[in-house]
Amino acid sequence: MSLATAALLQFPATPAGVSTDADAVRGELDVRLVMRHAGARLLRLRYELVGAAGAPVVLVAGGISAHRHIAANAGFGEKGWAEGLVGTGRALDPGRCRLLGLDFVGADGELDVPIDTADQADAVAALLDALKIERLHGFVGYSYGALVGQQLAIRHPHRLAILVAASGAHRPHPYASAWRALQRRAVALGQLQCAEAHGLALARQFAMLSYRTPEEFGERFDAAPEVVNGRVRVAAEDYLDAVGAQYVARTRVDAYLRLSESIDLHRVDPAAIAVPTLVIAVEGDRLVPLSDLVALVEGLGPRGSLRVLRSPYGHDAFLKETDRIDAILANALRLSGDPA
Amino acid sequence: MSLATAALLQFPATPAGVSTDADAVRGELDVRLVMRHAGARLLRLRYELVGAAGAPVVLVAGGISAHRHIAANAGFGEKGWAEGLVGTGRALDPGRCRLLGLDFVGADGELDVPIDTADQADAVAALLDALKIERLHGFVGYSYGALVGQQLAIRHPHRLAILVAASGAHRPHPYASAWRALQRRAVALGQLQCAEAHGLALARQFAMLSYRTPEEFGERFDAAPEVVNGRVRVAAEDYLDAVGAQYVARTRVDAYLRLSESIDLHRVDPAAIAVPTLVIAVEGDRLVPLSDLVALVEGLGPRGSLRVLRSPYGHDAFLKETDRIDAILANALRLSGDPA
Repeated sequence: MSLATAALLQFPATPAGVSTDADAVRGELDVRLVMRHAGARLLRLRYELVGAAGAPVVLVAGGISAHRHIAANAGFGEKGWAEGLVGTGRALDPGRCRLLGLDFVGADGELDVPIDTADQADAVAALLDALKIERLHGFVGYSYGALVGQQLAIRHPHRLAILVAASGAHRPHPYASAWRALQRRAVALGQLQCAEAHGLALARQFAMLSYRTPEEFGERFDAAPEVVNGRVRVAAEDYLDAVGAQYVARTRVDAYLRLSESIDLHRVDPAAIAVPTLVIAVEGDRLVPLSDLVALVEGLGPRGSLRVLRSPYGHDAFLKETDRIDAILANALRLSGDPA
Repeated sequence: MSLATAALLQFPATPAGVSTDADAVRGELDVRLVMRHAGARLLRLRYELVGAAGAPVVLVAGGISAHRHIAANAGFGEKGWAEGLVGTGRALDPGRCRLLGLDFVGADGELDVPIDTADQADAVAALLDALKIERLHGFVGYSYGALVGQQLAIRHPHRLAILVAASGAHRPHPYASAWRALQRRAVALGQLQCAEAHGLALARQFAMLSYRTPEEFGERFDAAPEVVNGRVRVAAEDYLDAVGAQYVARTRVDAYLRLSESIDLHRVDPAAIAVPTLVIAVEGDRLVPLSDLVALVEGLGPRGSLRVLRSPYGHDAFLKETDRIDAILANALRLSGDPA
């Protein structure tokens, strides 16, 4: 695909927060993207690239709440969203590869239009152009990131050698779509009268039930309910309060709404994914059922393979079962320096 | 247990809507109940009793949205909440037994205090006193009704010969409690905004995801989403709109809130259930996991038995798989006139 859509490159941009210390660089660039549902738009892309120049590049993209800061590094010391997966000796070792992270289009909350996963893939291709990365050694996508990876493999197959698609199918399950639609309604209810944060917190709390499992809740929240100020309060509510507050503190409402929608817009033909693809599925994921990932792998034909985990963390297993995910990634990415 | 709590009996009361035509009677009585969390209260109990005088009485109690009108009858022709389970030749045949239905305490929305399932059981006992029913042939409880049946069997064991407890365990699962707590928060968010109906509709929509299964949604709502007025609308949303509107039209907010809480307050010791009990479980019920019903049956010891259904309707299977439920009830209740 032509990248005539990516014009107006400003690279490297140097606003506040940019650093090139210690093999870690953050940057931004403005691109003009022809979006599937919203026409031509000027967008600002934000990325972080960590690791030795010349090493193979692995892009790591997470769920709709993930961002460009994958893990703490010498340049940017705060924790990242996939902290447990990155480090010396890990499959994602900044000593042996360069790790590329990005903020999804729409994640800054500045874009109030439907966003397609195809748009995200075009933005990734524009970013790779700007960074002069011809081809990713690997694209590791988890949840929403897996959908973006599928689109990149369909629209720009020459830009990646291997796709690892964890906990994200070629289309959303109708039950999961209904669940997300109701979360968006919670936000809309809050917006009715200036309780936007309240609605967003409730949406996140409902989402958390889809990310985790009854097994985990059964172990953690076994205590009897209490009656507080005449109302019943169940054992999980302290946790859910914290989940909501954390999310509201770091998330713009439009970012949440539009990226949530974007998951529901995703529909691709697995046969069109023209890149070797490892699918990681979690038995017990309430959002992305194993059966849908089996269908994805079947559609991939000889290019597809499947690894299935059992985990009480369900959809969040990618972020929680880091040793097991690391072993799978090590095998899939086979970076130089790995044992044969 | 003494029924000194049940004073002020007015029976039969004769407000509008009372009828004694065709072996079907509706009535109301006022009782003073000492409630576990709210002290002494004067409550109005509403019931419907259908079938020939002298026949064995089976009380049928459903979920928190159920009511005294179990099924259409000659006296009251509108459809009931368990229509498919009642009829000539069915286990619940008004020609062979009398069917007793009731509105749960709090269902009229007039009681804004925590309501315990023990309170409901005491109300049932008071109702049986007033109706001069010494002992129920059977108590068939589904969902919330199963919890009330457990409490009746613990607190007033001489009032029932057999308990059938479908899709209701001795305690709520912590994951299900969290799900309900968030539904109640949706109502609270609506109340903040003077959008009480909007919040209640959203709560019901979220509840519906817990009552049904991904399998059913996958079959019914497979269509691609649409972009309507710049917003993504998924295939299940028409259905969810209808679900919400229907519920709001017939449900008082306080009734919903207090009965939802009541499920979460329920905790009984299965060993204390002193009545032969058949537990019906549905594999794939997202609200009441099979494992919890297995634990209930284990706690019942020699008094307990278990029947397990598979159904794409999950928690709602009792209302949907009526032929299979009927066969189970026929075996459990063994009313005279049944084939040996």
